[in-house]
Amino acid sequence: MSRTVLHLGAAYYPEHWPEERWPEDIRLMREAGLSVVRMGEFAWSSLEPASGEFRFDWLERAITLLEEAGILTVLGTPTAAPPAWLTQAYPEIFAVDEYGRRVQHGNRCHYCVNAPAFHAAAARIVGAMAQRFGKHPNVIGWQLDNEYNRVCYCDRCRRLFQDYLACKYGTLEALNERWTTAYWSQTYSGWEQIPIPIGGHNPGLMLEFKRFVTESYRKFQRLQLEALRPHLRPGVWVTHNFMGWYNGYDHYAMSEELDLASWDWYVGSGHNDYLNSGAAHELVRGFKRRSFWVMETQPGCVNWSAINNALNRGEARAMAWHAVTHGAEAVLYWQWRAALNGQEQYHGTIVDQSGQPRPFYEEVRRLGEEFARLAPLFEGSAPAPARVAILHCYESRWAVEWQPHHRDFDYVAHLLHYYRPIAARNIPVDIISADAPLQGYKVVIAPALLIMTGTRVEELKSFVARGNRLILTPRCAMKDEYNALLPARQPGPLAELAGVEVEDYYALDEPVPVKGNWFSGVSRLWAERLKKIEQTYTTPIAHYGPSNGWLDGQIAIAVNVWRTGLVYYVGAYLDDAAQQAFINRVLLMAGIRPELETPPGVEMRKLVKAEGGQEIFVIINHVNGEQTVHLPWPAREHLSGFTIKGEVRLAPYGVIVLTRADTT
Amino acid sequence: MSRTVLHLGAAYYPEHWPEERWPEDIRLMREAGLSVVRMGEFAWSSLEPASGEFRFDWLERAITLLEEAGILTVLGTPTAAPPAWLTQAYPEIFAVDEYGRRVQHGNRCHYCVNAPAFHAAAARIVGAMAQRFGKHPNVIGWQLDNEYNRVCYCDRCRRLFQDYLACKYGTLEALNERWTTAYWSQTYSGWEQIPIPIGGHNPGLMLEFKRFVTESYRKFQRLQLEALRPHLRPGVWVTHNFMGWYNGYDHYAMSEELDLASWDWYVGSGHNDYLNSGAAHELVRGFKRRSFWVMETQPGCVNWSAINNALNRGEARAMAWHAVTHGAEAVLYWQWRAALNGQEQYHGTIVDQSGQPRPFYEEVRRLGEEFARLAPLFEGSAPAPARVAILHCYESRWAVEWQPHHRDFDYVAHLLHYYRPIAARNIPVDIISADAPLQGYKVVIAPALLIMTGTRVEELKSFVARGNRLILTPRCAMKDEYNALLPARQPGPLAELAGVEVEDYYALDEPVPVKGNWFSGVSRLWAERLKKIEQTYTTPIAHYGPSNGWLDGQIAIAVNVWRTGLVYYVGAYLDDAAQQAFINRVLLMAGIRPELETPPGVEMRKLVKAEGGQEIFVIINHVNGEQTVHLPWPAREHLSGFTIKGEVRLAPYGVIVLTRADTT
Amino acid sequence: MSRTVLHLGAAYYPEHWPEERWPEDIRLMREAGLSVVRMGEFAWSSLEPASGEFRFDWLERAITLLEEAGILTVLGTPTAAPPAWLTQAYPEIFAVDEYGRRVQHGNRCHYCVNAPAFHAAAARIVGAMAQRFGKHPNVIGWQLDNEYNRVCYCDRCRRLFQDYLACKYGTLEALNERWTTAYWSQTYSGWEQIPIPIGGHNPGLMLEFKRFVTESYRKFQRLQLEALRPHLRPGVWVTHNFMGWYNGYDHYAMSEELDLASWDWYVGSGHNDYLNSGAAHELVRGFKRRSFWVMETQPGCVNWSAINNALNRGEARAMAWHAVTHGAEAVLYWQWRAALNGQEQYHGTIVDQSGQPRPFYEEVRRLGEEFARLAPLFEGSAPAPARVAILHCYESRWAVEWQPHHRDFDYVAHLLHYYRPIAARNIPVDIISADAPLQGYKVVIAPALLIMTGTRVEELKSFVARGNRLILTPRCAMKDEYNALLPARQPGPLAELAGVEVEDYYALDEPVPVKGNWFSGVSRLWAERLKKIEQTYTTPIAHYGPSNGWLDGQIAIAVNVWRTGLVYYVGAYLDDAAQQAFINRVLLMAGIRPELETPPGVEMRKLVKAEGGQEIFVIINHVNGEQTVHLPWPAREHLSGFTIKGEVRLAPYGVIVLTRADTT
Repeated sequence: MSRTVLHLGAAYYPEHWPEERWPEDIRLMREAGLSVVRMGEFAWSSLEPASGEFRFDWLERAITLLEEAGILTVLGTPTAAPPAWLTQAYPEIFAVDEYGRRVQHGNRCHYCVNAPAFHAAAARIVGAMAQRFGKHPNVIGWQLDNEYNRVCYCDRCRRLFQDYLACKYGTLEALNERWTTAYWSQTYSGWEQIPIPIGGHNPGLMLEFKRFVTESYRKFQRLQLEALRPHLRPGVWVTHNFMGWYNGYDHYAMSEELDLASWDWYVGSGHNDYLNSGAAHELVRGFKRRSFWVMETQPGCVNWSAINNALNRGEARAMAWHAVTHGAEAVLYWQWRAALNGQEQYHGTIVDQSGQPRPFYEEVRRLGEEFARLAPLFEGSAPAPARVAILHCYESRWAVEWQPHHRDFDYVAHLLHYYRPIAARNIPVDIISADAPLQGYKVVIAPALLIMTGTRVEELKSFVARGNRLILTPRCAMKDEYNALLPARQPGPLAELAGVEVEDYYALDEPVPVKGNWFSGVSRLWAERLKKIEQTYTTPIAHYGPSNGWLDGQIAIAVNVWRTGLVYYVGAYLDDAAQQAFINRVLLMAGIRPELETPPGVEMRKLVKAEGGQEIFVIINHVNGEQTVHLPWPAREHLSGFTIKGEVRLAPYGVIVLTRADTT
Repeated sequence: MSRTVLHLGAAYYPEHWPEERWPEDIRLMREAGLSVVRMGEFAWSSLEPASGEFRFDWLERAITLLEEAGILTVLGTPTAAPPAWLTQAYPEIFAVDEYGRRVQHGNRCHYCVNAPAFHAAAARIVGAMAQRFGKHPNVIGWQLDNEYNRVCYCDRCRRLFQDYLACKYGTLEALNERWTTAYWSQTYSGWEQIPIPIGGHNPGLMLEFKRFVTESYRKFQRLQLEALRPHLRPGVWVTHNFMGWYNGYDHYAMSEELDLASWDWYVGSGHNDYLNSGAAHELVRGFKRRSFWVMETQPGCVNWSAINNALNRGEARAMAWHAVTHGAEAVLYWQWRAALNGQEQYHGTIVDQSGQPRPFYEEVRRLGEEFARLAPLFEGSAPAPARVAILHCYESRWAVEWQPHHRDFDYVAHLLHYYRPIAARNIPVDIISADAPLQGYKVVIAPALLIMTGTRVEELKSFVARGNRLILTPRCAMKDEYNALLPARQPGPLAELAGVEVEDYYALDEPVPVKGNWFSGVSRLWAERLKKIEQTYTTPIAHYGPSNGWLDGQIAIAVNVWRTGLVYYVGAYLDDAAQQAFINRVLLMAGIRPELETPPGVEMRKLVKAEGGQEIFVIINHVNGEQTVHLPWPAREHLSGFTIKGEVRLAPYGVIVLTRADTT
Repeated sequence: MSRTVLHLGAAYYPEHWPEERWPEDIRLMREAGLSVVRMGEFAWSSLEPASGEFRFDWLERAITLLEEAGILTVLGTPTAAPPAWLTQAYPEIFAVDEYGRRVQHGNRCHYCVNAPAFHAAAARIVGAMAQRFGKHPNVIGWQLDNEYNRVCYCDRCRRLFQDYLACKYGTLEALNERWTTAYWSQTYSGWEQIPIPIGGHNPGLMLEFKRFVTESYRKFQRLQLEALRPHLRPGVWVTHNFMGWYNGYDHYAMSEELDLASWDWYVGSGHNDYLNSGAAHELVRGFKRRSFWVMETQPGCVNWSAINNALNRGEARAMAWHAVTHGAEAVLYWQWRAALNGQEQYHGTIVDQSGQPRPFYEEVRRLGEEFARLAPLFEGSAPAPARVAILHCYESRWAVEWQPHHRDFDYVAHLLHYYRPIAARNIPVDIISADAPLQGYKVVIAPALLIMTGTRVEELKSFVARGNRLILTPRCAMKDEYNALLPARQPGPLAELAGVEVEDYYALDEPVPVKGNWFSGVSRLWAERLKKIEQTYTTPIAHYGPSNGWLDGQIAIAVNVWRTGLVYYVGAYLDDAAQQAFINRVLLMAGIRPELETPPGVEMRKLVKAEGGQEIFVIINHVNGEQTVHLPWPAREHLSGFTIKGEVRLAPYGVIVLTRADTT
């Protein structure tokens, strides 16, 4: 779904300030070109200072003042911060930690997501807010809660987890079998014996607990949706601000009932790596497979990292344009101004503690002007469709994280190991759920897709059968949906496609040489010893060199012709240069070429307008130094208004927005 | 206040040994030249083996034996180690930790400082000891408890904390406003909702909790003082042995009602850095602004560090003289001999487990002889008055430690960054409370004086107005006494003095070049971008070089002429060489010059006698290697009795004590 | 006691698999040459699925199937994994951790070893298994529980600990004196005041708590022995699988009532260091002073280390032969095949998740063939008797570990510092309890034998008086059996033997030069300053060079002639080269020479047959590279059947088994 808007905004907390100050804040916002603010998501104690006593007038006045300045409002439901009067009345709302302690008041998300008293209070405040503001013409969307992240270990959660299991498995016999509880005498003879895992535990139990956490949040989210939606005017959307690669629950499941995905994009220490952030954008775009919002991002610095350095001058602007080219409809800074007291006094803001613009304000103002000016150009545009997809699976990820086998084998880093060499060549790539349909792709990569289900097998077979390319990697297809080993060598039910099976896998204490047809390098962290399956059209394309004896001379990578498609099985975890060479070759063979080559650190993204198909090329220099790009065609540059061609110099963090001058 | 005594001593625990051994110990002490011992501070179970059954005779016998050997006694109140019969009777005396566990018997300071049953038992034992020993002619002073350090998380403490807040703020409205509790919906509608902070929390609440801890210890200390003082003969002082830079409470508040400050000086692993230990001595001297005691120091090694290496031969002697020159009236080793069992068996001692002198004994004996011989010379002397003062503030320190913003920004290290280049040049410097009066100083430095109050502003203005120099540094004057941001750019109410304001502050992931008028170097960890305030007499004296874009070319350091004084605002955290150059220049301009220049590692300290004003110069080689000092005048050396002049060679860890031969 | 068997085996869990699979597993075992399996040790819930309902038939069928294949069975009692129905009925069986939390079901050893309900249930299942299988001709031995390792902090354990102390000390006066509780006012006036230590505590209390833990496990073990033994046919042994150097309890005490010691040998990350593993074998051989079993070892890799890399090809075979030469009667791999779910899915196995042989299977098969073929040769053989013994003491070890004084002073590493240079020269060495008789040895080394008792003194005196050599090292003889300092300089009651006393000991922050008669090098971590005792025949053989002043020129090592023996006191912790030179010299003087010199990484071990005294020489290349050994005599090589002489090339991880061709 293509974008409809191009917003710049900020989180705003009028409840922290005397009302006299509001007009000055809003004046400064308007001058900076902000078109939207988010409000309310921590304001419960201001909106309902005592049980049932709602105070919505102040918020309405703030919305109205903003409206008058032409600034739209996104409202947050304030449930991430239940007020003290509520937890005092119902102490069981406080979550319990691994040590059995009730969490304290005064930090966020102190709630047990399953507490009935919390559910009741949350439904009431959300319902009341919805009634008051759901049809307000200036309120364009809602954010539910804020960055869901708490796990509770209370007795109620344990009981509900047991109920969840009873409901899912039906009988203890089934559960005992799926979890192989005969092992270590874990066998359960009563549902009430099953614990919430603290630390390591049975992989089957751990996976179900993560599913239970997802389910708990989903119920809590649905409760809010049900309180909210009946009161909304048409077109008002509901979202939640996720935290990128956060692994606390299944984000695909959580996104299902939302209208829009959004996320909070923070760099922390150091500077933005556009290939990593690009992947995070693709991840979030993949939640709903449509454009998304950057609901929070840092204006300069954060306050929670080891070194809270500021982004370089210009870096935030480059990042904002980068987000837009990956499908963001809006970029909101967190926050407008820091509360005078409270845990986040030192977080980056747009105006400082004195209420005056910080130096960063000028960068915001420039962006505001640019977004406003180029909004018509970008209207109806979307990132050019990707022909390459990377499959992502929370359950495989958790399973790998709990049992990495090598301390440095990180699921996400391994996924990025496939994403980065493709994105570095300006080739569009999606990151999607491993359960998503694969129509439209020519190359699909399944990095460490540990957990293999029948549905996935069918979809992958059908994908390859259509003449496409599939890349399987280490740790693929080793387990079933109960986190149990499949009683088969990897890649289990995909062996027929792969044409190889994994005779053994090795965590590596030292890199192992790998010699391929188009590269030579090493495998690090991991190596799988492949064996050709007879009567397949399999060709080894890389072998291991001398190392631990088990791998010497064995197949590291093979490709198989299956029906009209090709399946690569990559047993190695290649070094970066070898990986780039391998990926280049695969893409070349698949006929996928970049539109434009750029030097390292420079990104080119193409957007296409839904109606008319006009192409917009955005080139972003993510490096704090000048760079040169060669344009193969003359172009109109929309930020400057000039027409350019040939060698183009990009300033540090420079951005150019082009349409082809030869075709328009 | 100048010294009256020059004591060498040790902690002695006669209760660990059969009484037959005591005479031999005391004989060895006398031979070593010890003039004082501290006893009793962990002897509760020996002094009161069951409730109300006092056994003081043994202690009296020990005091008498010591008296006969000419050795004075300092008595400790034994409250740091409440006996098992007491905690068994009143388990609520055991402190509660962050996990809700009651602390165990058998390690020190296991008490809840607010437990009424503990208060009653403490007052009783202290009162009884005071009655028995308060007028004993050989008991010259008392130490209360031992190294206060425990924080308790029990329900009683929480309730008392809430009472403390209610008493201080009067209304919840006031508290909610000062802490900006609207933020994260923290708003309190009942005092009983307020938690004791575990981990990070609202900065206002955290600061008040530290004040509450200080207040709790202060009450406990007052209770002991009230039990003790009525029974003391005139001249007997009361102290507590603090732990140098320990940050558990406000030491200025704790020192107020004491007669004397003392501290426990331990090096731990490695060797003594005399500039660091010098600063610690100034700190403790600043608690009461008079001479102090080193109540404990290590005879060789400690037992609690990662590597409990011994001080080098001669190093302890150099350290003892160093303490004396910084205002110590006494140096006591901990301890005389190790108990045969118990947690500190391996701690350094003067006699070993066999009861025979250790090799270190000889070094003590030498010191004993020197202290006795030179006592008349040092009588009535005090360190030459400092014309430079560094302001220190526990509340600013805590606030910085809780929110360092850069993991390596350490409040004390930053303070030492100003102390060291001055002390390295043998220029006297005081470290005093930021609330102390500033009479007598020509230069005052306020390193990271984050918290600014009206009183401080007035004192600083008046100080500068008198024609003096003030140096403000990064993080100065950013917050009020509730740990809330001031709604003004730094340095807030001092901006008029400084002539600059901080447009923005930056935690640095990389050092940033700084070019000054008299130096060039870098700023590391932190940089503040300064902006000249119009209509001030401000001169930039250093600028930032190219770096993150925000700082490039901006003002790093400026100096302003205000009334007849000068105010430096240092926005940078300079490298050591640049800092030395900067400090040298400031001192030069202020007309402050060292009396004597010494090579690195060699310290010169001047003492002045109250009556007659005789000057004593002590030169100490803190390096394990020979060093040469050039004397500008002939002098009498009092340890050797020789007259010396010109080039003087100092042995490794050598000490010379001089008076000018040309002026006496 | 010499070996009777040479077994290769594996842990097998038929309860994880459908019975149809068993024949295939057993077929593969037989083909691999396995002669024994261990079963049952985690099968409680399969053997007793509900209270008192025993299901032994399946196990009997498994034993029978194995019997038919010629494979013997070792049975484990399943008490390490109490089933959920039991802990649900008696929640007090769950151990309590340091935080007061009950441990969860689902990981091993979740029991409180002192829980009466657990004792009852354990006795019942063990008794029932014994009745059913005790006389089974194919069941040759029993393993009790599995890797005892839990410490419980429950109130019952605390009460029992107090009872234990009351029983041992009789009066509190005695306890207070032994522990010097006057220190820190720890004095106990009631047994119920004494805590279980959490973190550091009084050394006397900590040592007694370790003894109490040992005693608790010993009672639990005895309870099983009593349930088991009456039902066993003659010749069936009982063991426990210890964990090498694990320090949780006194393994000598635990081994006393067992028939056989066994251990679980895991490398974890990296590769096997044969000198370290050799020491571990000697340790376990020392538990019962007879041959032992390797009850578990890794087939390739483990799953619980930071990097779970595989052993190199051939490495496991070399390790198996290495174990045999150190006295192992059996080597069992853990495990045959991984359960499809459960915490150890990724642990190395012999067959893979698909049930097919892994590549490692071939290495097992080779070993199986070799073991079977050479069993007659090895029958009745034992490692050649050692004339060097190293004394090992759990109590000294704990005392050093609790108070290392230097973070890198590790008791076991220090012991290995003496073991390695001897073993590296192929000289047999025993590691035995410091309370074992010393008959038969010519050299005894007491590394850091901190705790000295009257019995030990007598044994050592008598040993030296017989004309032998004793080496005392740093930290020897400093404490008594209450972990109290002896009121004497080291080596206390051994000073007469040593001819020196320790004037002081120093943890070192930097290495200190040591110059000896036959070497020069450094002492690191630790140095003791030795002083000659008058009227002894003591000769200094090494002195310290210039360093901290205290050590400069002092004696580092001395040797004393006492009666007809020699006593070395080594005050230094030498670098490896100096230590090798020193050890070489001591051995040379004692007339102990290796039978055969081998290059680094190559081990030669001699075994001798009890009847006839035939000598077997096994040479093992522990290096992943070819090595050459020079044979001084012609020999028959039994693996190849060839006769060889002179230069012999060993393949990477190569093994040769020789008997002399000139003497047979």
